[in-house]
Amino acid sequence: MSEKYQALLDKVYEIYDLEKATRVLIWDRDTNMPPGGDTARVQQITTLRRLSHHLYTADEMGELIEAADAELTDLPPTSTEASLIRFLRRDYDNARKQPPDLVARIAEVSGRARGVWKQARAEANFAAFRPWLEQIVVLEQERAELFGYQDDPYDALLDKQEPGIKTAGVRAVFNAVKAATVDLLAAIQERGQPIDDTFLYQPYDIEQQRMFAHYVAAAVGYDFNRGHLAGAPHPFSTGFARDDVRITSRWYPHYLSPSIFATLHETGHAIYEQNTDPALTRTPLARDTSTGIDESQSRLVENMIGRSRGFWLVHLPALQQQFPQQLAGVTAEAFYKAVNKVKPGYIRVEADELTYNLHIILRFELEQAMLNGDLAVADLPAAWNDKMRALLGVVPPTDREGCLQDIHWTWPSFGYFPTYALGNFYAAQLYEAALVQNPGLAQEIASGNFTGLLAWMRRHIHQHGRKLAPADLIQQATGRPLSHEAFVRYVTEKFSEIYQL
Amino acid sequence: MSEKYQALLDKVYEIYDLEKATRVLIWDRDTNMPPGGDTARVQQITTLRRLSHHLYTADEMGELIEAADAELTDLPPTSTEASLIRFLRRDYDNARKQPPDLVARIAEVSGRARGVWKQARAEANFAAFRPWLEQIVVLEQERAELFGYQDDPYDALLDKQEPGIKTAGVRAVFNAVKAATVDLLAAIQERGQPIDDTFLYQPYDIEQQRMFAHYVAAAVGYDFNRGHLAGAPHPFSTGFARDDVRITSRWYPHYLSPSIFATLHETGHAIYEQNTDPALTRTPLARDTSTGIDESQSRLVENMIGRSRGFWLVHLPALQQQFPQQLAGVTAEAFYKAVNKVKPGYIRVEADELTYNLHIILRFELEQAMLNGDLAVADLPAAWNDKMRALLGVVPPTDREGCLQDIHWTWPSFGYFPTYALGNFYAAQLYEAALVQNPGLAQEIASGNFTGLLAWMRRHIHQHGRKLAPADLIQQATGRPLSHEAFVRYVTEKFSEIYQL
Repeated sequence: MSEKYQALLDKVYEIYDLEKATRVLIWDRDTNMPPGGDTARVQQITTLRRLSHHLYTADEMGELIEAADAELTDLPPTSTEASLIRFLRRDYDNARKQPPDLVARIAEVSGRARGVWKQARAEANFAAFRPWLEQIVVLEQERAELFGYQDDPYDALLDKQEPGIKTAGVRAVFNAVKAATVDLLAAIQERGQPIDDTFLYQPYDIEQQRMFAHYVAAAVGYDFNRGHLAGAPHPFSTGFARDDVRITSRWYPHYLSPSIFATLHETGHAIYEQNTDPALTRTPLARDTSTGIDESQSRLVENMIGRSRGFWLVHLPALQQQFPQQLAGVTAEAFYKAVNKVKPGYIRVEADELTYNLHIILRFELEQAMLNGDLAVADLPAAWNDKMRALLGVVPPTDREGCLQDIHWTWPSFGYFPTYALGNFYAAQLYEAALVQNPGLAQEIASGNFTGLLAWMRRHIHQHGRKLAPADLIQQATGRPLSHEAFVRYVTEKFSEIYQL
Repeated sequence: MSEKYQALLDKVYEIYDLEKATRVLIWDRDTNMPPGGDTARVQQITTLRRLSHHLYTADEMGELIEAADAELTDLPPTSTEASLIRFLRRDYDNARKQPPDLVARIAEVSGRARGVWKQARAEANFAAFRPWLEQIVVLEQERAELFGYQDDPYDALLDKQEPGIKTAGVRAVFNAVKAATVDLLAAIQERGQPIDDTFLYQPYDIEQQRMFAHYVAAAVGYDFNRGHLAGAPHPFSTGFARDDVRITSRWYPHYLSPSIFATLHETGHAIYEQNTDPALTRTPLARDTSTGIDESQSRLVENMIGRSRGFWLVHLPALQQQFPQQLAGVTAEAFYKAVNKVKPGYIRVEADELTYNLHIILRFELEQAMLNGDLAVADLPAAWNDKMRALLGVVPPTDREGCLQDIHWTWPSFGYFPTYALGNFYAAQLYEAALVQNPGLAQEIASGNFTGLLAWMRRHIHQHGRKLAPADLIQQATGRPLSHEAFVRYVTEKFSEIYQL
C-alpha cells in the first residue's frame, strides 16, 4: 500500500472514529440516558462534532487527499482506494463550505431544540417550538447558500442526503405517485372489500413482543453477534462499525403492529451496513450510499418482505405461539390483509404502505415553502392541516398529531423527509429488477423464502457501501434511472388484489 | 469572570467532554455492545484518548493555565478557580510526562488484553494471558520511570490513584490491618457462634432482584432522574456529568447477596459524584478526589449502611415482599448476621467485610514484586496461591478463581488495588468521626435512618469534589491523618458482637 494513501487512511480513521463515538453518544441518549443528562450530552456531542469538523476541514486533510490521489493514478474507479478518494474530495469540499461556528451553532441549536420539541409535542404546544423552528429555518437557509445551487435552494439540502438528485426531478416523481395514490385510495375507499384488523388492537405483553422482535430480526438475517436491539421512543438504527450495527424498536401495550414493523424496518437499515464489503471497514464508505438507498432497504424488509403473504405463511405460527389467546383462529391470509389495511391517518410512522408517501409529499412541499420564505413558521400548523385534508382527507385534532409529530427538523434535516419516499420507489424498482433477473424468485418469495432476494440485495446494493453514487447504483442494479413506475405497478397490483378491486 | 480564566475553562470543557465521551463508549461496551463490536471500540477509545491527550499536553494548555493563574492572584486556595488551576497544573505536568505513543500503546494493549483476559479467565488458561500481562508490566515500569519517584517505583503509580500517598505508609497501615485481621479471623474460626446463611443461596428470580436493586439504590439516596441502572458482568459506576451518573449491577439466579451489595456499592460511588458542588460541573473537579476516597463512599454504603442491623430492620420487609417464599420466617437479626458471615474464599468481590482486605494486601504485594522484577509473570500463579494459603488458608482450584479473577490489570492499573483497602480504612475513620461529632447519630443509624450520616458525607466529602487532596480531606473531616485504628476498632467491635467472642 502506498505511503501517502496510508497517511490519508490514518487521518480518516481518526475523524471517523470521532464520528462513530458521536453516534454512540446519541444511541445512549436515546436508549438509556436519564433526563438529567441532557445538558451535558448536548455539550459533549457539540464538542465532538466541532473537533471532527475541525480535523476534517483542516488544510492538511486536503493535502492528504491530493497527495494520495497523485500517487494512485492507475487504479480503476471502482477500487476502494479510488472510491474513497472520490468520496472524500466531494465531502471535504462540502465540509469546508461550513464555517466551524455554523457547525457548532447547528449542533447546539439542534441539541436544545430537541428538548423543547419533546415537551412541545407532549403538550401539543406549537408556540413553544416555533422560535426554535424559526432558528432552524434560518440555519437551513444559511446552509443552502453556503453549499450553493443552480435552480432551487432546496437542491443544496437535498443533495446532502441524496447526492446528485434535483428538486425538480423529485417533484416529478412525487407528483406522478401522488396522482396514482389518490386514485387508488379513492378506489379502495369506494369499492374495496372491508378488512378486519381488530385483532391487532388487543393487550399484547411487552416482554413477549420484545422476544418476537428478536425473532423477526434474526429471521430476515440480522446478525446479533454484530448487533443489539434496544427500546427507544422513536425507533432508529445506527452503526458504530460494520460489526456493531444497532437497532431499536418500540412496544405498545395494546397494538401489535408497531413493534413488528418498526423492528423489521430498522433491521433493513442494519443488514445493509452489516453486509458492506469488509474491505471498507473503518472508512466512510462502510455504510449506505445515501439516505434514500438506505431507506429502500428498510422499506423492502418492512413492506415487500414483512407485509407479504409468504412471510406470514411461515412466521405467523411463531407469533401465535407467543400470543395464543389473542391470535387464536387468525389465518395467515387474514393476518396478511390486516397488516396491509389502508387507513388514512395523521401519523406518518403509523401510515400504511400506500398512504405513507402522501405524508412525505406534504413535508417536502412545506419544507420548500419555509425555506423559500413562502411560508412563515407561524403559519405552519394551518398549512399542515390544509394539506392533510387535501391529500389524506383527515385533519389532526391537535399539533401533536400534526406538525409536531416528527423529531427530524430538530436535527436539522430539511431535504431528509423526501428520501423516505424515494426509498419506497427505489425499493420497488430494485424488487422488480430482482424478480425480472431471477425467474425462480417469485415462487420462493410466495412461499416465504427471502434468502434469494436478500442475496441479490447484498450483491447489488449492500456490499458496495458508498462506492457508487445512488443514481449509478440504481442504474447498475436495475438497468434504468429512478422512476415512479415500478412503485405504482407494485402498489396497484398488491392493493387491487387485497381489496379485490 | 476573567477572560483568561474563561479561555482556560473552554479548553478544559473540550478536553473533559472528550473524556466523558470515552466513558460513554466504555459504559456501552460493558452494558450493550455485541461481541463483534470489540475491535472497532478499541480503535475508537484509542483515538479519543489520543486526541484528548494531545489537546491536554499541548504547549497551549500550559500557557492557558499560567495566564489564568497570573490573572487570578488573590483568590482563596479553596475557591473553585484556584482549586481548578492547582489541579490542572499537577495533572498537566503528569500528562506531559507521557509521550503520545505511550498513551496510544497503553490504550491499544489495554483494549486487546481485555478480550484475551476474558477468554483466558473463562478457560482458566493463564498461559494465554501471560504475554499480555508481561507487556502490561513493561508498560507499568515505563510509566513509573516517566512519572518518577524517590524511594520506590510503586510510589509513582500509587500517586496516580491517591495523590501524595507513599508505598511505605500504605505498607505500614496494611501490615497493622493484616495482623489484626488474622487474629480476629482465627478467633472467629475457633470460637465464633455459627451463622446460618443458607437462605441466601436459593433460586431468586432475576427480574425481582433487579426491581429490588432499584429499590435499595433509591433508598440510600441515588437520584434516578440523574442516573440509570443497568446490568454488567463486572459491576461498575461511571459518570458522564454530575447529572448523569450511571451504576451497574449483576444478578445471580441462585444467590441473592451479589445483587444487593454490588448495587449498594456502586450507588455509594454514584451518590458521591451526584452530590458534588454544581459549581464544579463540566470540570475535572466534579468527581471523587481519589480512587481511595471514592471507594470509602462505596464501602460505606455497602458495609456500614448496607450490612448494618438498622438497614435490614427497615428494608427486610420490602425484600420479603418480593421473595415471600424464600425469606419466610427470616428475622432482621438473622438476615443481618447472614450477610455478615465471615468465610475466607477465593474471590475478592465475594469476600466478606473482614477478609476482603487480605485479598487486596496480596495484590499489593504481588504488583510490587512484578514491578520491581522480583517476580516473573510466569511465576505469578504459584506466588498467588502461596499467599492465598498464608493469608486466607484457602487455595483456588484453578487460575480462574485465582490470579485471573480480576479485569483490573488490563486497564492497566498497578497501584489501583490498594485503594480498595484504603477505602475501607477511610470509610471507618469517616464513619467514626461522624458518630463522634454527632451524638444523636448512633441512635438514628441503629433504627435504620441514614439521612444524617449521608448528609455528613455530603458536607465533608461529596460537595468538595476534587478541590482537596485526599490527605487534606481526611484531615479536615476527621481531624487526623489516615490510620488503621478506626477500621480495626470497627471490625473488632462488629464481628466480636456478631460472633459473640
